[in-house]
Amino acid sequence: MNRFCYERRIHYYETDAMGVVHHANHLRLIEEARVAWLKDRKLGSVHYPHANWHLAVTSSGVQYLKPMLFDQLVRVEVQVKREGIRMFFRYAVFCNQELLSTAETVHVPLNEKLKPVKIPQELIEGLEKEPWIETWPSSLSESPKKQP
Amino acid sequence: MNRFCYERRIHYYETDAMGVVHHANHLRLIEEARVAWLKDRKLGSVHYPHANWHLAVTSSGVQYLKPMLFDQLVRVEVQVKREGIRMFFRYAVFCNQELLSTAETVHVPLNEKLKPVKIPQELIEGLEKEPWIETWPSSLSESPKKQP
Amino acid sequence: MNRFCYERRIHYYETDAMGVVHHANHLRLIEEARVAWLKDRKLGSVHYPHANWHLAVTSSGVQYLKPMLFDQLVRVEVQVKREGIRMFFRYAVFCNQELLSTAETVHVPLNEKLKPVKIPQELIEGLEKEPWIETWPSSLSESPKKQP
Amino acid sequence: MNRFCYERRIHYYETDAMGVVHHANHLRLIEEARVAWLKDRKLGSVHYPHANWHLAVTSSGVQYLKPMLFDQLVRVEVQVKREGIRMFFRYAVFCNQELLSTAETVHVPLNEKLKPVKIPQELIEGLEKEPWIETWPSSLSESPKKQP
Repeated sequence: MNRFCYERRIHYYETDAMGVVHHANHLRLIEEARVAWLKDRKLGSVHYPHANWHLAVTSSGVQYLKPMLFDQLVRVEVQVKREGIRMFFRYAVFCNQELLSTAETVHVPLNEKLKPVKIPQELIEGLEKEPWIETWPSSLSESPKKQP
Repeated sequence: MNRFCYERRIHYYETDAMGVVHHANHLRLIEEARVAWLKDRKLGSVHYPHANWHLAVTSSGVQYLKPMLFDQLVRVEVQVKREGIRMFFRYAVFCNQELLSTAETVHVPLNEKLKPVKIPQELIEGLEKEPWIETWPSSLSESPKKQP
Repeated sequence: MNRFCYERRIHYYETDAMGVVHHANHLRLIEEARVAWLKDRKLGSVHYPHANWHLAVTSSGVQYLKPMLFDQLVRVEVQVKREGIRMFFRYAVFCNQELLSTAETVHVPLNEKLKPVKIPQELIEGLEKEPWIETWPSSLSESPKKQP
Repeated sequence: MNRFCYERRIHYYETDAMGVVHHANHLRLIEEARVAWLKDRKLGSVHYPHANWHLAVTSSGVQYLKPMLFDQLVRVEVQVKREGIRMFFRYAVFCNQELLSTAETVHVPLNEKLKPVKIPQELIEGLEKEPWIETWPSSLSESPKKQP
């Protein structure tokens, strides 16, 4: 698959009194990247609002390495795998070559009554094509150093 | 009717890089006050999630007079009137005796398909008992000066 | 001046339980457009974080005409004028040819201690070139009907 | 130490199109609880805005067990420990006796230039008095079942 990345500038309203992006807003940025990834893989139409279920988040984790600043251009890289009904997303947020944060979210498909549903076959097949590197993104940030 | 006010401290995540509450968050604070006002008047049960409609906002306006700061204890005062299907809320946000901001929102009741519905009789009757002072809150802030 | 517009998709986290963008998030969308406008006019560097002041909001108003929905591609058009120390921004948010909302914000330049400062000459001159149409955006939405 | 808990109702603006609190807003709720805990322990004055440093978040994790709903009364319980310069907070969010989510955040004290500073002696001593139960909150939720 082609390498995916999601890019945008940091908004002023995302900052807090410390002058950096508030830590809760990292989860919003990676949600944007997740939605964009699904679209990029032509899988956006399998879920809400096009289908009767959501990709509910069952857990999230973020490691804040460097502050994100107003107007900074950030880039989110994504990798995804599936195990049974659960989907695992991992994210690495960069500004240029600098790694600002890493994150992971786990998802299950829930219908409008918040009951688990089957992952559509289309999505299962889409996910099978995706690479998953256990040491990512550390593997990612090391490569540019080795091969400049 | 008894005088209503809604009180809480400013949260850290509401601040922005200028060290003050971001202006968009004022609309959230007054939404909290609006919901609390409906509950105080025993009208909370007339709308979502207890009934099949929402009090949709059709316009909002905020005048930012003084900054709101992290951990500040703020107090929102509310007045309400109805004209036909529309409900008008006005808000004044204070810290102690200092007026920090004023705001107004206009609402219409919409069902889940975003179509206008009738205002329930219970709510109409509840609103009839409420005073509406056109010059409020300037009338409010002047009183303490005149009668100290 | 060239016609400016700011375009992006609606994020999932901007929606609320009514399935539409929460009304407070409109102020965030138009802030993005305002920042992008300043950059487009090469005026981004006159204020925070490049200079020691912010474009503080002293009032805001939003008219919510149609709901904004998840994943919708919206377009914000902007017009600006200056009167003394105050800057007036007006916004019109469209999805295709449909006007979803209009808004206005008023700003004054404040330094880090929240004291008013002079508007930089560069910004004054930049603003002088901008057209201001009092009937905008209604003038805007009428044109396509007349000349289809 | 006395048992601490932070309680408030869920706000409408915290919900998303699935009708539940958006997962990013859990980090905001537990931030409120963290700030309230520091105040409860008379430690609020050791950090921003009373002192020249912030309790920056270096990592966060949330386990979303049950949805939080508009107007629900939720209760956040907190436990804290320190290891060197790092402070570990753990959170359990309940509605009545039902555990809705658990979370953890790790913090280091950073000054205004985002450089690490020493944890004030007052805070170190305050933290020494706090119990830390490794199996918490599962230990917490089991107790009521055993001794009803």
